[in-house]
Amino acid sequence: MSAVGSVGNVSPQRMRFEAPLALRNGATIAGYELVYESYGELNAARSNAVMICHALNASHHVAGLHDGDPRSAGWWDNMIGPGKPVDTRRFFVICVNNLGSCFGSTGPMSTNPATGEPYGPDFPVLTVEDWVHAQALLADRLGIERFAAVMGGSLGGMQALAWATLYPQRVAHCVAIATAPKLSTQNIAFNEVARRAIVTDPDFHGGRFYAHGVVPSRGLQVARMIGHITYLSDDVMAEKFGRALRREAASAGAGDYRFTYDIEFEIESYLRYQGEKFSKYFDANTYLLITRALDYFDPALPYGGDLAAALAPASADFLVVSFTTDWRFAPERSHEIVEALLANRRRVTYAEIDAPHGHDAFLLADPQYMSIVAAYFDRIHQNCLEPAVPVSTQSVEEAA
Amino acid sequence: MSAVGSVGNVSPQRMRFEAPLALRNGATIAGYELVYESYGELNAARSNAVMICHALNASHHVAGLHDGDPRSAGWWDNMIGPGKPVDTRRFFVICVNNLGSCFGSTGPMSTNPATGEPYGPDFPVLTVEDWVHAQALLADRLGIERFAAVMGGSLGGMQALAWATLYPQRVAHCVAIATAPKLSTQNIAFNEVARRAIVTDPDFHGGRFYAHGVVPSRGLQVARMIGHITYLSDDVMAEKFGRALRREAASAGAGDYRFTYDIEFEIESYLRYQGEKFSKYFDANTYLLITRALDYFDPALPYGGDLAAALAPASADFLVVSFTTDWRFAPERSHEIVEALLANRRRVTYAEIDAPHGHDAFLLADPQYMSIVAAYFDRIHQNCLEPAVPVSTQSVEEAA
Repeated sequence: MSAVGSVGNVSPQRMRFEAPLALRNGATIAGYELVYESYGELNAARSNAVMICHALNASHHVAGLHDGDPRSAGWWDNMIGPGKPVDTRRFFVICVNNLGSCFGSTGPMSTNPATGEPYGPDFPVLTVEDWVHAQALLADRLGIERFAAVMGGSLGGMQALAWATLYPQRVAHCVAIATAPKLSTQNIAFNEVARRAIVTDPDFHGGRFYAHGVVPSRGLQVARMIGHITYLSDDVMAEKFGRALRREAASAGAGDYRFTYDIEFEIESYLRYQGEKFSKYFDANTYLLITRALDYFDPALPYGGDLAAALAPASADFLVVSFTTDWRFAPERSHEIVEALLANRRRVTYAEIDAPHGHDAFLLADPQYMSIVAAYFDRIHQNCLEPAVPVSTQSVEEAA
Repeated sequence: MSAVGSVGNVSPQRMRFEAPLALRNGATIAGYELVYESYGELNAARSNAVMICHALNASHHVAGLHDGDPRSAGWWDNMIGPGKPVDTRRFFVICVNNLGSCFGSTGPMSTNPATGEPYGPDFPVLTVEDWVHAQALLADRLGIERFAAVMGGSLGGMQALAWATLYPQRVAHCVAIATAPKLSTQNIAFNEVARRAIVTDPDFHGGRFYAHGVVPSRGLQVARMIGHITYLSDDVMAEKFGRALRREAASAGAGDYRFTYDIEFEIESYLRYQGEKFSKYFDANTYLLITRALDYFDPALPYGGDLAAALAPASADFLVVSFTTDWRFAPERSHEIVEALLANRRRVTYAEIDAPHGHDAFLLADPQYMSIVAAYFDRIHQNCLEPAVPVSTQSVEEAA
């Protein structure tokens, strides 16, 4: 086996679906496209596939590089690759850019065949379940009947949970990281403020800004800044930035305030930079759509809030991981999932990682976290891929 | 003594200051006015005065009613009045609308004598210490040499701490509630997002919106929504709103989603209402000014971060109160204050109130909280207002 490394250069692929997909909101969508990437090889038995589900602002580009550019590494490149926790020498790993996203799959920026104009606000409001159904159709076309694992963090973890209940026979293992069975009131509140910042930006034009040659950049920046605060722990923010003042090396009075409403503290500079960067690549309508899908996810709603009843159809084994300083989806939210699974007598491995980074920890290479996922994927490999020992032979040997 | 009640109808008063006030940022301001209210009577010895310091969006109107309107009750009417914890039958209570605020004292909306136009962005950037100096000048004019107590919550608590160190001989007791010795990085980050929402609103016009007949209403709404989330605990938000859907009683499908980016959840409706209400009465430049004063407050900065050294000049007795679910200014922030005061061998009473309401708890009538403040003001009454027993007489009696 080769050393731990990258999956190397990768290229996105595209698949078109003509048949109408029935959506949770009662509408249908037809003639849509999904962009995806895959790493590793699907084995002959088609038993080694792993579906990765992406979170709010991520894409199908999970691992490897585009055109050899080292800055283009996939968003979970530390997790997926040869010799990495999800080892692409063993597993065929796939990630689909979700419907409604803005990285190549059909979404609000795409042309609405009914009008010849971008969908904009006419793109259907989607749910986590809609995404999972679309991913399942793509898996059908790839000939993948059953996944060795479906895995995701944050909003991706919600998709993994939905997979396990909507397609129980197609999911052998479900890996749900830094996620929650539904948003808290506070989570919804932060999403709502971000959406208000976007839709009240005069450049939003009711979602039809494409026709005006503008983007609601101010709103997107504020939305991203709010998001960023909730991704980081108070402690790691204090450690990284503290109350340090933003100063040019040569400036006078470097140790005292400048008494300005412009950038004074390093944290302000950092947040503005993150906001500006985001506003240049992320679609505002997609931001509304994805935050709303987060708000709406609540599998227990049809069961009067009984999460155990909601998860009863699942037959997978589960790995649930949370992070101690994650205040967006705190460990208590993972406990709810674990308890509901145990009530159904599912096999659950639960890890609560003591990491300082808040919600963002699920994207970082904490050694304990990586070891736990690696060990779990070793088990998945044994469960799904090792040649089965015929029971009769084993019995004979044991009897001998 | 009469029963517990309101101070009744009150009227704001106004005081003009012609002498230039030197500000922390190096500028001066002259010819400014401060609006204030007072309740109770100043005694002949002038020993029963209590200064209340207000927080971000509050005013000088702490107690009682304006024009008999029951909706006009002061923001701390549950705390201050006859028979209330700060008993106006004993104390002469005063609160000053801070310089730069928007409730009558000179601020960004006032006319700049140099231009004949509103100050707008030319109003000086102020600090907590500047406010305290201005309050002290007003106290001078009222003939109050020494306060029985200076008291405030949140940003008001910071002013109380500043009073105790800037004017140690003028503060007998300092009551600092739900406050912090400086903002955390996360606190600054939330302030910065709120400010960005305001200054990037096209109706802000670089702070000169008065001349355009508009206000940056969208930015103010987003700013207030962010603030509101940080004032409430996650738990109380969940208890008050949960994931309840906003529904007209007669609407069809009341139990299911409507699949909209408009108001779907009750919490969204609540936040929008709070934002809209706020945007109609609060000045955008004042919001920048006051959040910046919060950011800048850091009495330990000139002492290399040594809070005990910063608080060393204080000679008052202290009551410090925090609330368990306050994540804006968590109890740990009050512990820092208490430890620094104890290092100076100050007399400190510390209470950590188990209340569910988050930062907002300091404005609410939690019985334990009210009892502790009432008991402390009983002690203040004894310390400052009871006729002193001559020591020699007492000694004789004890010897007899």
